[in-house]
Amino acid sequence: MLAINEDRMLADLRALAEFGKAGTGVNRPAFSDADIEARRWLMAQMHAAGLETVIDGIGNVYARSPDVAQSILVGSHSDSVPNGGWLDGALGVVYALEVARVARGTRGAVGIDAVSFADEEGTWLPCLGSRTFCGEVDESVLRDVQKKTGERLMHRLTQLELRGRPLARLDPERHRAYLEAHIEQGPRLISEAIDVGIVTSIVGLRRHVVRFRGRADHAGTTPMSMRSDAAFAMFNFAITLAEKLRAVGGPESVWNFGIVAVRPGAGNVVPAEADLTVEFRDASADVIERMEEAFHAGVRAANGPYNVAVSSTPTAQLVPAAMNAGLMDDFAAAAADLGASFIRMPSGAGHDAMVFARRIPSAMMFVPSIDGRSHDVSENSSEADIRRALRVFAGAVSRTLARMNDVAASQTPPSCREKERAS
Amino acid sequence: MLAINEDRMLADLRALAEFGKAGTGVNRPAFSDADIEARRWLMAQMHAAGLETVIDGIGNVYARSPDVAQSILVGSHSDSVPNGGWLDGALGVVYALEVARVARGTRGAVGIDAVSFADEEGTWLPCLGSRTFCGEVDESVLRDVQKKTGERLMHRLTQLELRGRPLARLDPERHRAYLEAHIEQGPRLISEAIDVGIVTSIVGLRRHVVRFRGRADHAGTTPMSMRSDAAFAMFNFAITLAEKLRAVGGPESVWNFGIVAVRPGAGNVVPAEADLTVEFRDASADVIERMEEAFHAGVRAANGPYNVAVSSTPTAQLVPAAMNAGLMDDFAAAAADLGASFIRMPSGAGHDAMVFARRIPSAMMFVPSIDGRSHDVSENSSEADIRRALRVFAGAVSRTLARMNDVAASQTPPSCREKERAS
Repeated sequence: MLAINEDRMLADLRALAEFGKAGTGVNRPAFSDADIEARRWLMAQMHAAGLETVIDGIGNVYARSPDVAQSILVGSHSDSVPNGGWLDGALGVVYALEVARVARGTRGAVGIDAVSFADEEGTWLPCLGSRTFCGEVDESVLRDVQKKTGERLMHRLTQLELRGRPLARLDPERHRAYLEAHIEQGPRLISEAIDVGIVTSIVGLRRHVVRFRGRADHAGTTPMSMRSDAAFAMFNFAITLAEKLRAVGGPESVWNFGIVAVRPGAGNVVPAEADLTVEFRDASADVIERMEEAFHAGVRAANGPYNVAVSSTPTAQLVPAAMNAGLMDDFAAAAADLGASFIRMPSGAGHDAMVFARRIPSAMMFVPSIDGRSHDVSENSSEADIRRALRVFAGAVSRTLARMNDVAASQTPPSCREKERAS
Repeated sequence: MLAINEDRMLADLRALAEFGKAGTGVNRPAFSDADIEARRWLMAQMHAAGLETVIDGIGNVYARSPDVAQSILVGSHSDSVPNGGWLDGALGVVYALEVARVARGTRGAVGIDAVSFADEEGTWLPCLGSRTFCGEVDESVLRDVQKKTGERLMHRLTQLELRGRPLARLDPERHRAYLEAHIEQGPRLISEAIDVGIVTSIVGLRRHVVRFRGRADHAGTTPMSMRSDAAFAMFNFAITLAEKLRAVGGPESVWNFGIVAVRPGAGNVVPAEADLTVEFRDASADVIERMEEAFHAGVRAANGPYNVAVSSTPTAQLVPAAMNAGLMDDFAAAAADLGASFIRMPSGAGHDAMVFARRIPSAMMFVPSIDGRSHDVSENSSEADIRRALRVFAGAVSRTLARMNDVAASQTPPSCREKERAS
């Protein structure tokens, strides 16, 4: 069992929350000064823990256990959404720091590597750090990445003296598994009074921007029958699409109309143009495909009524990512060892773990979020839950490590070793 | 008959369009530098025409015919909406300049006063200039007026050295009538190929801002049943209200949902708050009252479903304003004299004339708008229509002037004088 220190972990978590502190939360968007200062601080902690620590060319902080040829990669991200919470990402990074620190003192051929990925939140590109770590993001793609403000990623990386630094990369020979702890960011655990969630899969997602083009007319002088009202067409589209998604979706499907813009935006002008961002998610690729078809049928049907032209542009797509069964069982066993209650549940939010799930065995554990809040400074978890979850997480890491060290030591399959112990 | 000069009027109109020129339109919001420069130029033209010209404490340019005790007040406004058209307001001001200029040379106890009102478009307060001219706006109200940007009107008036200047005021002893020419700003005249419109009344209006308060949740992790989606509640409210307004409104009632704002505005966040600006108009006060009742019933009914709280704030209210029958007949007779086709029609847009209609005999004449466009740089009218409408307008002013001068000269009611002429 890893000799974790809960008080030290809490002190680290609170120290990290000072970077970009914004009320009870943090404002630490990727590559902001606060984000970079937090990463420098993390590097110092990881270095002090005896880990070989670098910040790489995309801002990932990667800390290797020396003297081992294989490792379990443990981590999350330390960037935040604008004015976000203090735990989203940070909790998993600090758990990784604590677990890697205490694992340094243990024997075995498999160690713990800790990581804080860059820009999981997508200030520039969602999961930028983990996708780059896994070799998914070409240099040619990076060159075109810019923020909504028009600022180029390459320009910012150059400013920060990150551009040109070596990239830390996934090494399948070394990295045997990826484990991540994270707050739930939803109301399920807290409302059911469950201690931890074991993630079964991360849902897939499609996002589209739908544009409605009508005509700006004077709202007093233009008869209702002669208007091309882009906003009213959008209202009808959203209501009709929600009904369709409910019909074709599964019981846990979700959808959202999160960004709405209407132009020119005057009380006495008929809206000429409206933009609507539509997204929908499900753990099943088949269900997502059905929702996608319903979406496109909705766009086609919305063309014509209200004399408004409707078109759509896909802006994001994620395939569902299944977690590894053996690692999930390690979490379940660790929770049972500690008398912690748990459920297995899908993750409705995307995480760095979904990038790894396509490549190496990966798993995630959720900590209850008070009132289900996140992406807001009100985001929080109880200290008792944060402490307990660290124990469960460390317990699971110990179990995974033991399994892998057994294999590394004996080349005996872990199932056989378990049978030996059980007999 | 007034010896108008169409070429001179067109040259003036084009010269005025140079102030704040923005492509084919003008950007001349009230009290912008361009608006004030345009007013200085207008003052110079009016002064050169022999009129006693001032800019008053609220920015109205007011030009009195000297040597007469009574006058017909003729005018419109020279401010524009942001990036608006070159004719909205400006056409009526330039017609007024031309008519007042040529009327200076005529005999009679009743003359022509010309005016360009400030801020008809409501950059600060709708019909600010004409309402101040008519004594409707208290100093205490003016002190609180500010733009959306937070800039205070009083601060801007001080900057422009207007604050503290005397206010030009409606003088019922002097001002016998108010006449205004304006572009239609709608598609009716152009689509029916009619030369001029004679306004029968200006429709009343109510405007409300409706606020929907839900809760920001993660759009991936929050089950659909646990959301309080402010935007979706707003979509439903708008659709339902449109049906109700159609049911209770008259055949010419109009309504609009012109301003839509959704916060926080992220694809993966359930909208916490939405604002919708609703307005509706009709020429009948009774119909407006029915629409108002339907609106409030809609707000009450929208509270509860979708777990969203809905409230509304009235932001504008205008009562329908009937035009003067005798003045309308002068327009009709002038059009008939010149072989110009005309219809009598309500105005769906508000105008300075509605402020006067409550106090002195008032009338308006419309010029066809190409494609019904206005409040946009594409706003235009054909040169032939602009020339013809000036002839009709000047003809109507001549008739009104003749009627009033007859009365002033003889103290005989105009109806009797007409009978004398007819006999």
